Amino acid sequence: MGRTVTETGAQLSPVRLTTGRLEAFSDGVIAIAATLLVIELNPPAPGEQLWEAVAHELPAMAAFAVSFLTILIFWVNHHALFAGVRRADRGVLFLNGLILLGISFISYPTAVLGQALQTETHAGPAALLYGLVLLATSAAFTVLWAYLSRHPQLLHPGVQPASALRRSLAGPLLYGLASITALVNAAVALVVVALVAGFFALPPRWRGRGPA
Amino acid sequence: MGRTVTETGAQLSPVRLTTGRLEAFSDGVIAIAATLLVIELNPPAPGEQLWEAVAHELPAMAAFAVSFLTILIFWVNHHALFAGVRRADRGVLFLNGLILLGISFISYPTAVLGQALQTETHAGPAALLYGLVLLATSAAFTVLWAYLSRHPQLLHPGVQPASALRRSLAGPLLYGLASITALVNAAVALVVVALVAGFFALPPRWRGRGPA
Amino acid sequence: MGRTVTETGAQLSPVRLTTGRLEAFSDGVIAIAATLLVIELNPPAPGEQLWEAVAHELPAMAAFAVSFLTILIFWVNHHALFAGVRRADRGVLFLNGLILLGISFISYPTAVLGQALQTETHAGPAALLYGLVLLATSAAFTVLWAYLSRHPQLLHPGVQPASALRRSLAGPLLYGLASITALVNAAVALVVVALVAGFFALPPRWRGRGPA
Amino acid sequence: MGRTVTETGAQLSPVRLTTGRLEAFSDGVIAIAATLLVIELNPPAPGEQLWEAVAHELPAMAAFAVSFLTILIFWVNHHALFAGVRRADRGVLFLNGLILLGISFISYPTAVLGQALQTETHAGPAALLYGLVLLATSAAFTVLWAYLSRHPQLLHPGVQPASALRRSLAGPLLYGLASITALVNAAVALVVVALVAGFFALPPRWRGRGPA
Repeated sequence: MGRTVTETGAQLSPVRLTTGRLEAFSDGVIAIAATLLVIELNPPAPGEQLWEAVAHELPAMAAFAVSFLTILIFWVNHHALFAGVRRADRGVLFLNGLILLGISFISYPTAVLGQALQTETHAGPAALLYGLVLLATSAAFTVLWAYLSRHPQLLHPGVQPASALRRSLAGPLLYGLASITALVNAAVALVVVALVAGFFALPPRWRGRGPA
Repeated sequence: MGRTVTETGAQLSPVRLTTGRLEAFSDGVIAIAATLLVIELNPPAPGEQLWEAVAHELPAMAAFAVSFLTILIFWVNHHALFAGVRRADRGVLFLNGLILLGISFISYPTAVLGQALQTETHAGPAALLYGLVLLATSAAFTVLWAYLSRHPQLLHPGVQPASALRRSLAGPLLYGLASITALVNAAVALVVVALVAGFFALPPRWRGRGPA
Repeated sequence: MGRTVTETGAQLSPVRLTTGRLEAFSDGVIAIAATLLVIELNPPAPGEQLWEAVAHELPAMAAFAVSFLTILIFWVNHHALFAGVRRADRGVLFLNGLILLGISFISYPTAVLGQALQTETHAGPAALLYGLVLLATSAAFTVLWAYLSRHPQLLHPGVQPASALRRSLAGPLLYGLASITALVNAAVALVVVALVAGFFALPPRWRGRGPA
Repeated sequence: MGRTVTETGAQLSPVRLTTGRLEAFSDGVIAIAATLLVIELNPPAPGEQLWEAVAHELPAMAAFAVSFLTILIFWVNHHALFAGVRRADRGVLFLNGLILLGISFISYPTAVLGQALQTETHAGPAALLYGLVLLATSAAFTVLWAYLSRHPQLLHPGVQPASALRRSLAGPLLYGLASITALVNAAVALVVVALVAGFFALPPRWRGRGPA
């Protein structure tokens, strides 16, 4: 809030945006993307036994929970990235748009994967699609860090984009690993994605020494 | 807003998050979860009489209204909890994620219960599922208070996590009671959940002396 | 933002809520309720001519647009009301919850009315249901003003709840009129609701002298 | 946030609204409208091959992505416009409501276009409908600038509404061009809309000299 920059006032296409409002808008999109996931879950069909129906829905629920927590991790990363951004130009705006597009899209491969795990048909391709969408979304973060490292004037003093760029490669690498796992077993790929979310959420002392 | 802490700047995985933005994001998820409940209500099928169709939908509407008010109560509790949090570490972030996951998930058992009350099939199991999801969601609040009571450095001075932890047990106990009631009668279980929401909303002088 | 009151800190059930966060949460619910309306519109069925399908959908689109603008008017009234509230107690919280419940629910009678106008079956009862839901929602505002007029310590100095309460009766009266009109003609009732929204949006000099 | 104006306090129908809250509410509607687009995408039908199903869904995904980015551009324009607004009167409120109505409605022609491109039936009319809705939405911005240029007291000092009004004509002109293209080829019309979004997002040095 304190680092808003609105030098261009009432222009139709301002180069500089208040990062406060950009973050608030992004938060809105990410919160909605996470919460919308649940509408892909299906109540029991008429005549179906309730617990059987719920048990049948369990794989879709697992996919829902993993995607929900993954989107929360993306949100934390988004927050951490924009904590370092002093002002947003059009490139930041566009690349942030791609990140939000990716996050909004996650509900589609989640629904596909949940359905595939339920029906045990084409589960491998569904998990691969799921992994690739997460890979692309996390890669959009890396692209934005690469852009920021070439435009350091957009960053707060003291932010080191080169090391942030290197660390941001963890996302694409881990989701790439999950995608490769999907070629072997779909459920294991979902577990890998869950572990990635868990790893990011773990307190640092439980995962060795590190800057965070 | 005034107690944001961003010591780690542009790290990929910051331990400390601005609680202001964490609350705003959580508010977004909770508001969406409450508002999305309505899309489970079904307009009359073609050829159905309108008032008959509305009367037929009444149990689903009751489940909608009770879940809506319950989510509002969860929101108040969330607000009260974070009013005491000075800064969020990764554990707070993860446990808050579980709370949001639970609240987002409520629309599923609400839809199941509404449908079960309408068709008068497997209403007992549906109410039990509903009660257990509310139990788990309120238990996530208790777990977060337990975590905070073991990390008092995350709290504002003067906050007493031990008594907050004790009081937070009211949620799991009451939703546990609702779950047991569900084994006897589904509609009564829904009434119990409605009474819990009403109890939290009542002015203190109408429910005896108390700290609130 | 400047009038937040958090005297009770980390209690589980605080009597006093920051009105800033209560407004932000309410804004979220109202924005979602307005935007969700559109998912009730149906793309053409396979084989249907596009313009015929769009023309066939026009009554549902009219209901969508009228409900959207009506929810915006409710939002303005909500904003005006909370501009006068200094702090929120549990009664304000609960009555605000009823307002939000009503606004969230509007998509249901909107879908019913749109479908009824399309199929030209039970349009009268559908318009009556629509009018009654708007009547109930606007009456919740009146009840909240009545509550505030009996608890003036919750208001900012200078706010006159008695006259606000009188003016707030316009909503229930106008939506009551729309409901009565529904008994005669459904489309005319929708026009009446549209005129109410237009009346609130009109600049004051176009509707005679008035305080606003 | 710093330019809120609440002179009318607790009136039911205030002429002046805090632009901060008006912007936050509009942000919410726009974020939801963008994120809701994804629910129009359909997972594979039972028995369908996954990659075939995804390939079959590609036109709908393209329409989703283009509409998503277009809504983001509308958001930037909305932000730029309100950066110049000092206070909102009822006319601003009403015209802003029309802008939000248009943006919320975009998911409908997007779904229609996606379906038409998939089934290769009535794709031309669907693209025309799509272009016309974008034309109408961007025209609402022009109307709001025209209103503001006739009410300069609502603007911050230094804002030049006449030139902003001229520049705001780019939207209707470009979407009018897309609509005309739709009469020839639906896919090309979608590409034109994508190019408009890309043009707005391009850094200024890549598109010749200009004020932004």
